[in-house]
Amino acid sequence: MVKEYIEKNQQRFLDELFELLRIPSVSADSRHKGDVRKAAEFLVAKFNDAGVDKVELCETKGHPIVFAEKIIGPSLPTVLVYGHYDVQPPDPLDLWHSPPFEPVIKDGKIYARGSCDDKGQVYMHVKAFEAMIKLNTLPCNVKFMVEGEEEVGSDNLGTFVRENKAKLKADIILVSDTAIISLDHPSITAGLRGLSYMEVEVTGPNRDLHSGVYGGAVANPINVLSKMIASLHDENGHVTISGFYDKVVELSDADRTAINKAPFSLENYKNELGIDDVQGEKGFTTLERTGIRPTLDVNGIWGGYTGEGAKTVLPSKAYAKISMRLVPNQSNKEITELFTKHFTAIAPKSVKVKVTALHGGQPAVTPTDSAAFKAASAAFEEVWGKKPIPTRDGGSIPIVALFKDELGLDTVLMGFGLDSDAIHSPNEHYGVKNFLLGIETIAAFYNHYSKNN
Amino acid sequence: MVKEYIEKNQQRFLDELFELLRIPSVSADSRHKGDVRKAAEFLVAKFNDAGVDKVELCETKGHPIVFAEKIIGPSLPTVLVYGHYDVQPPDPLDLWHSPPFEPVIKDGKIYARGSCDDKGQVYMHVKAFEAMIKLNTLPCNVKFMVEGEEEVGSDNLGTFVRENKAKLKADIILVSDTAIISLDHPSITAGLRGLSYMEVEVTGPNRDLHSGVYGGAVANPINVLSKMIASLHDENGHVTISGFYDKVVELSDADRTAINKAPFSLENYKNELGIDDVQGEKGFTTLERTGIRPTLDVNGIWGGYTGEGAKTVLPSKAYAKISMRLVPNQSNKEITELFTKHFTAIAPKSVKVKVTALHGGQPAVTPTDSAAFKAASAAFEEVWGKKPIPTRDGGSIPIVALFKDELGLDTVLMGFGLDSDAIHSPNEHYGVKNFLLGIETIAAFYNHYSKNN
Repeated sequence: MVKEYIEKNQQRFLDELFELLRIPSVSADSRHKGDVRKAAEFLVAKFNDAGVDKVELCETKGHPIVFAEKIIGPSLPTVLVYGHYDVQPPDPLDLWHSPPFEPVIKDGKIYARGSCDDKGQVYMHVKAFEAMIKLNTLPCNVKFMVEGEEEVGSDNLGTFVRENKAKLKADIILVSDTAIISLDHPSITAGLRGLSYMEVEVTGPNRDLHSGVYGGAVANPINVLSKMIASLHDENGHVTISGFYDKVVELSDADRTAINKAPFSLENYKNELGIDDVQGEKGFTTLERTGIRPTLDVNGIWGGYTGEGAKTVLPSKAYAKISMRLVPNQSNKEITELFTKHFTAIAPKSVKVKVTALHGGQPAVTPTDSAAFKAASAAFEEVWGKKPIPTRDGGSIPIVALFKDELGLDTVLMGFGLDSDAIHSPNEHYGVKNFLLGIETIAAFYNHYSKNN
Repeated sequence: MVKEYIEKNQQRFLDELFELLRIPSVSADSRHKGDVRKAAEFLVAKFNDAGVDKVELCETKGHPIVFAEKIIGPSLPTVLVYGHYDVQPPDPLDLWHSPPFEPVIKDGKIYARGSCDDKGQVYMHVKAFEAMIKLNTLPCNVKFMVEGEEEVGSDNLGTFVRENKAKLKADIILVSDTAIISLDHPSITAGLRGLSYMEVEVTGPNRDLHSGVYGGAVANPINVLSKMIASLHDENGHVTISGFYDKVVELSDADRTAINKAPFSLENYKNELGIDDVQGEKGFTTLERTGIRPTLDVNGIWGGYTGEGAKTVLPSKAYAKISMRLVPNQSNKEITELFTKHFTAIAPKSVKVKVTALHGGQPAVTPTDSAAFKAASAAFEEVWGKKPIPTRDGGSIPIVALFKDELGLDTVLMGFGLDSDAIHSPNEHYGVKNFLLGIETIAAFYNHYSKNN
């Protein structure tokens, strides 16, 4: 029934999604503040159309949160759906084959910033809900909380959750912001890495200098920053920050064996990325490096003259954005402190260093033996014809830990993207098939979850 | 006589210089191509007004060269004056206290891009020549060659010099593009460092990736570039490129003692730059590090996300501009090759590296016992009341080696800037006193040089 409803309405579903994708709701860029709100208002209207009891645009100190609910019976289970309508900045723009905010379908994929992360996946929920309302088959209560600050650290979500515990009362949280292994191998994310995201500033002389006159005698902040960054890993790819690994849960051999059973071809991986070799922590496989091990990456670096041609400057300042992915039981607050302490300590006397924490989130693991996880598994099996594989994912959804701490609720990460969807990159895309099957799977989840609760 | 002429006309001299400074002749930026030509045309007009026999705007494959001459007697000595009318890019613009191309005088200093390097110093020559013509006291033949590509490597000067050897026939070359120690300590540059300026590109994966999904398993080009840059110096501040020091002329203890006799206060140096400590090659003083030792500096670095906020990207590419200052008898061509070979060799298999040479120049030493050097010394003594100190300077004027090789001519580097003039930096400035005394000193040079030739 849901399947037929989707088939009949799929063109309208896509048209509506395209309308949402055209709004450049880049939360990191203050110039897009108005667009972020516009995306929230779009969702308010669509929740109303879909048939919620009520929908609210809740103001925060930053971008607003959209809350909606449909209560059909106080004794029935309640699912709280979380998602986000903000998107990553689209740059570098020149690498996009089509403009990031003008969605197009090519080879069965929707190309646009946010198509997968997370507008496309949020919109599946709106449409799955609509289908069950129109067909009069919704088997449980549903609440929706869709925020506009996920890509900048969900700074105001914590306050909102703490101040609205009654309103958010539910039995389980359902999030679609992750990926399956492939269309042939559906999977459910059972673990997520946390995040500490820092910005560092290294200052040498008090002004830009002529490198010919001063070079060799005055510390160059770019050279110094490079050396400091290089020292953050040892020759085995281990992070050198003192205490970094202290709380890391080391997995049993059995667990590691299970993780490495996921279908994975190193050759395909290298070919798809155009690299001759992978690189990472010694003693771990690629799946382990991205799933169960903490990591440190420089996400951006800048300093000195970066224009056309040559300028012989010894700059005053150099900057980098450095983030660490965390695993259970690392604490993002503690790692942020360890990094700050370490980075300040390794600076030579010839420079000054400033370290700022930009944002962070706790690592999380979802129990695979819960009723909700089992319902998600059954929903996949029903719609995709295959039992989904539980995986450990590299990306962070910091709110999972927040929901556990503040609401006492577990989260089921039932995402439908693919790792190759290029989220956070130029040419982000999302399969039309993933979008449509996702809607069906969400509806199936409601049924399975309600049956067993 | 010249002194009085300068006093009477100084306001007009400054007005004319300001007009030249208002033209944003940034040779590195193709958007300023028209402005660069405008600056050349301005000089053509002013050479005519000053009384040359002829002046030509000579086309090259890049920006034009202005050539002018005044021949008063075939048996008299001929001085060929070299300078450049192009300027460095003005960025970072937000650090300028007044706009870079709107000159203002503050505390006796002219603030503008190019005020010292090299428009202000070139214009002293135009006005010294004018004074001697109007006073009918020019004692020798004078030729002028003023180019518009010095800040981007003088790419077309070599061809021009080779193709115009007869036109450029002279006895000595005179250049004002260097600095004196201070107004109290006039000095003449007797040695100059050479330059190899490179750009490097490090490519990891074929597209920007999500650092959460791929971080820890795929080489991050920023981390790799940082490590490669860090490895270019050892723990003693020596450059690690194999063969880098092979041809370096090691100075005698006597020569090193002489260099270190120049007035220099490490405390003042540190205070003026706002640094707690200097940093450089072990075993050498600051004056030696900037004068007689080769160095390596990163002039610019960029890669990944550098905008507002946080973006968890593992970028595809990272870039740096890296330059090396060279000393006798290093060859800039050879060092460029050694760098390219070394940098390519140290790249791990997980990335691809591209190295491009942007520009370069040979190191040079001027003989202090020549008639021309002695005339410059006498000119300073006459005007400044003090015998100038011969110095070794860190900056590069690559054309000195070119003139020696192609024209067989020595160069006298009679510059009037100060190291604190912030050339290549925001708030470049040039003392009005330096400008006016410079004009007088140039005229005195003509007299002393003609007497002894």
